[in-house]
Order: sequence, then C-alpha cells, then structure tokens
Amino acid sequence: MYPNSLEQLIESLKCLPGIGEKTAERLAFSVMDMEEERVHLFSESLEKVKKSIHHCPICNGLTDLDQCSICSDKTRDQEVLCVVEDPKSVFLFEKLGLFHGKYHVLKGLISPLDGVNPEDIELEKLIDRVKKGNYKEIILAFKPSIEGETTSLYIKRILGDLNLSITKIASGIPMGADMEYMDAMTLERALMDRKDVE
Amino acid sequence: MYPNSLEQLIESLKCLPGIGEKTAERLAFSVMDMEEERVHLFSESLEKVKKSIHHCPICNGLTDLDQCSICSDKTRDQEVLCVVEDPKSVFLFEKLGLFHGKYHVLKGLISPLDGVNPEDIELEKLIDRVKKGNYKEIILAFKPSIEGETTSLYIKRILGDLNLSITKIASGIPMGADMEYMDAMTLERALMDRKDVE
Repeated sequence: MYPNSLEQLIESLKCLPGIGEKTAERLAFSVMDMEEERVHLFSESLEKVKKSIHHCPICNGLTDLDQCSICSDKTRDQEVLCVVEDPKSVFLFEKLGLFHGKYHVLKGLISPLDGVNPEDIELEKLIDRVKKGNYKEIILAFKPSIEGETTSLYIKRILGDLNLSITKIASGIPMGADMEYMDAMTLERALMDRKDVE
Repeated sequence: MYPNSLEQLIESLKCLPGIGEKTAERLAFSVMDMEEERVHLFSESLEKVKKSIHHCPICNGLTDLDQCSICSDKTRDQEVLCVVEDPKSVFLFEKLGLFHGKYHVLKGLISPLDGVNPEDIELEKLIDRVKKGNYKEIILAFKPSIEGETTSLYIKRILGDLNLSITKIASGIPMGADMEYMDAMTLERALMDRKDVE
C-alpha cells in the first residue's frame, strides 16, 4: 500500500525496541521532511556502526579502534579497575567524569535461574586480567539485584585471596526520591547499609 | 566519548520526532545487536525513501512512480474524489479499504491566524482538477477543527455552483469512547448532527 521504499523503512524502524507500527509510520514520514544530507549521514552511520564497532580485546568495551581509547590511555589510573555488566555502563560512568581508572565489561551477570553461569559472562577473562595486572582496587558496579549480588560474591570468592580490595558501589535510596515510593528491598538495604553522620 | 560512528548514529536518531537523548542511545545500541543484513536494509531504505518518494503530479499524494498507483488505477471510481489534508490520510483510508474513488491531497488546511491562505495549500490545483474532471461527489475528509471547517466552507463556496455534491465526513463521539471524557465541542457537534434512529 505504501510505496516500496517507505514500506521498507517502516518495517526497519519497527525492528527497533519500543517502536510499534504507528510510531514507525510517524518516524518514516518525518524522514521525508529531513534534509538530504542529514538522511545520508543517518544511513551511513547505521552501516558504519554495524561494521566498525566491536569489543575491545582488553576490556570488552565497545570501540571502533584496535584497542579502546580508555585501555590505551596511559594517563588513567592503572591500579583501579571498575567492573561493569554491559558496554553501556562504561559510557554512563564516563559521562559522569568522576572515575579515572580502567574498566572491564562482563557479558551480563551470573543468573543460575536463567542458566547463565560464570563461563557465559566471560569471568575467566576478568580474573586473568586482574591476576596479571597490578591492581589495588576492584570496584564492582553492577545493578543492585540478585544477579548483581551473586556475581559480586563469586568474584570476591575467587579474587578475595589476592592483595587488593574488592568494593561495590553503594545501593540505597536515590537522591531526591520520595520515601513512600521506594520498594521494600531498597528500604531494607538503605537501613542495613546506614552510615555514621559526619 | 562514544566511538564516532555510534555518536553519529545517536545524533541522527535524535533528529527523529519524539526521540530524546536516552531513547536515541537505547536505539543505537540495539542496532549493534541487529543482523547485518537488516541494518543494511534499514540504511538503504532511508536513502531510497529520501531519493525516490515524491508527490504525485495529479493528486499530490506520495509515490515512487511517475504517477501514483491510485491515480493510474482505471478500476477505481472516477466520479468520487476524497480531499484530504496530508499524504498520510490517503494511507489511513486505503488501510480501511472502504473507499474506492480517487484522492486529492492538499498541503494542509486554511488557517488565517497562522497566515495559511488558500494559495498556500494549493487549493487552485484541486479546483482545476474538479472543474476539468467529471466528478459527482467531493468528500472532504479533514480533521474536525476550525481550520478544517474554514477549508470546507471555502471549497464549498468555490465549487458549490457546479453540478456535484460536496460532503464531509461525520464528526461526533468516536466508537467505544466514554462520554465523560469527551470535550464540549465534540459533544455539541454530536448533539447538533444527531440522526434519526433507523
């Protein structure tokens, strides 16, 4: 019913997460109103992203270079390693600009119920890296969840004997949140992890 | 901070209506997980849509042919013309599959307050077409609004003397709607346009 290329564009947009039929149509129509140069850049970036972005061989993060810019940055703290569950987390922390060490990206979190075991998330690669490196602290920055806890405990068990501290980011009530909207687990965690007022 | 191509893709996605920073990032990451062939089709369709889709010289609808498939379809009713305010409306009606006449697409609706006059929406082209054609009925299918009413009245004034009926689609309470959520104008229109129970 739609001209072929328009139909194809709508179908493509529908493959994106959270984009349904109506939204795909609206977006496709908006493409027709864009400047030609802009559409060309869009089209080009799609192909480029798919072709040039791959995992960094050292940290598993995303990069279009042989080695990602963070791994090859000699000015960053070589003694602190932040372990995250997906490549996106690296960009989240980098946006903050507060962490100046190195990263290591796992392929998800251990989840026995879903059949995800340590070998599925390439934990061996992390352990190898830590053992060969000269780290003073390993920061575990997983989302607070059963899977995050399981993965943290597993890493602690394996690396606990080495001469380095293993920490995890704080879990609790987010800044500005209303107490009444917090779930029981978050409240419980916030209470258990209470700190002295300084 | 992101690899270049990823940054470019995020920027491109942000140009789409209703797509903000966070959503653009989420969509861009999902592209990396798509199959290569799918991304290629997506990229290709963007360029094709921009390059091949243009307005049909007869009805102003969108097409990738010299003349749109509806205008060149000899089996459709040549005596009924449905006038719509944008190309998308044609596809909406075609999806329904209930209308078998021809279409004419205006470039919007008359809106004196916004400085949109009859010549801005290419009304002359519609009037020319109707005068040269052999139509029995002109159906005005604009959205119920001040602009829709104004445009309808204007067309009626110019084409009213010709030997054809000029109708407009019904306005009122949509099927399945809750009365209490209807605005005053819709209720008023529904009351004014009441019909005999048959």
